[in-house]
Amino acid sequence: MKRAGLSINLATLRQQYNLPQAVDACLAQGITAIAPWRDQVHAVGLAEAARIVRENGLTVTGLCRGGMFPAATPEGLADAIEDNRRAVDEAVALDAECLVLVVGGLPAGSRDLPATRAMVVDGLAALLPYAQAQGMPIAIEPLHPMYAADRACVNTLEQALDLCDMLGDGVGVAIDVYHVWWDPRLYAQIARAGRDGRILAHHICDWLVPTRDLLLDRGMMGDGVIDLKAIRAEIEAAGFHGPQEVEIFSAEDWWKRPGEEVIATCIERFNTVC
Amino acid sequence: MKRAGLSINLATLRQQYNLPQAVDACLAQGITAIAPWRDQVHAVGLAEAARIVRENGLTVTGLCRGGMFPAATPEGLADAIEDNRRAVDEAVALDAECLVLVVGGLPAGSRDLPATRAMVVDGLAALLPYAQAQGMPIAIEPLHPMYAADRACVNTLEQALDLCDMLGDGVGVAIDVYHVWWDPRLYAQIARAGRDGRILAHHICDWLVPTRDLLLDRGMMGDGVIDLKAIRAEIEAAGFHGPQEVEIFSAEDWWKRPGEEVIATCIERFNTVC
Repeated sequence: MKRAGLSINLATLRQQYNLPQAVDACLAQGITAIAPWRDQVHAVGLAEAARIVRENGLTVTGLCRGGMFPAATPEGLADAIEDNRRAVDEAVALDAECLVLVVGGLPAGSRDLPATRAMVVDGLAALLPYAQAQGMPIAIEPLHPMYAADRACVNTLEQALDLCDMLGDGVGVAIDVYHVWWDPRLYAQIARAGRDGRILAHHICDWLVPTRDLLLDRGMMGDGVIDLKAIRAEIEAAGFHGPQEVEIFSAEDWWKRPGEEVIATCIERFNTVC
Repeated sequence: MKRAGLSINLATLRQQYNLPQAVDACLAQGITAIAPWRDQVHAVGLAEAARIVRENGLTVTGLCRGGMFPAATPEGLADAIEDNRRAVDEAVALDAECLVLVVGGLPAGSRDLPATRAMVVDGLAALLPYAQAQGMPIAIEPLHPMYAADRACVNTLEQALDLCDMLGDGVGVAIDVYHVWWDPRLYAQIARAGRDGRILAHHICDWLVPTRDLLLDRGMMGDGVIDLKAIRAEIEAAGFHGPQEVEIFSAEDWWKRPGEEVIATCIERFNTVC
């Protein structure tokens, strides 16, 4: 079965493996593209993570994640921007294809979504020149509207692309099917993203019915209702042919299975339903 | 404290009261506007429910709910349309201001959202002449995108208004803050809905952080992050001055409290945070 075109986001194996173990397990099944999270990189050390990537010839389809700009105080926003600069440095050290940004939700005590969205613009505008100077693309990941309060107030692909238009070069989008599959404007906005050269990443998993937890009940591809082949066709028609990156948070199912089984299932489903 | 302008959707009191009990409890605290669900009406009988409404001079801000059009077979869709005609009859008997429609999600086994949305259009188009002939406005309620799979594939106010434009007169929207508060296009679409005379209902509750259940963890107004006053101001600026209808599904909190306390809290919050 094909492995080319498949990347494993290491959140998918978070409960089973640390970064070196996850890489070994992926390599053992022929997977050479990964997307680590910053905490996983920090746990082993940036230099060691970079060595593992380099010596194994891995493709890093993205570093997860920067963002989280909105804050209750100006100092909080400044701290977030500074932390995002370090995330850019880490993405550069790992030779990642992009730094993925989850932009952040309402600051504690706030109900002001327009003001929160304005803080996101401020944060992105402050970060972008630094990322551009290092040649690191930043990818805004629109998150499902159910995360608008606590994780990301950028909730549609259209909104993310409007931000890109405002910001200029060096910024694009990470399209995760879990967040956008429901959107009646999805296909038109994928086409727009392609025309503008904004597609930097394509994340896959599935939407389960029922979904028992807002955060940690994502499904394996094929186990839910997302038309993965249709969305892939639109993304490829829009000109993006990078790897599909599997990102599954699954506290009660996939995080409890042996990592080897999870990877094998990702490969099988990638070949059959994606 | 004011009661005028406040309606209680009887789902809010579903675990405490049947329809006559709920009406008595509302009247005891000066509430004269309600929105019953069809199963609550059926339990007491349509004629008796209509008598209760009439003899107490109640305003029925909506009957919940019709819709649920998509089906795996043509017979299923035909059955759904027939059931919606009965719902129109019931709304007329209750002198409701509108019949609220939750349009339905993917049929069992389907991943085809565009085809499902087409079935919704077919269902609405078949229902509308019947509703118009009876003078009963039908209100499409866009539901939060987290319900796209299993409850409603109309997920933004814009999408609902596009349907209204396609269908013509006699159809509008029920704007429930829970479903739309996150939408970056919300205010523009509220203004559009007002210009076109499409706003038929205004539902309120709150979005809790964290939200522990996708369906049954809605918050009391003021306990979450929705800027209720701001949305109300937009809806009123758009020309809708009907009652705000409280609709709270809350398995672990408000459904477990005495109905009297729930109603008193609705009144207090309506006067302070809405």
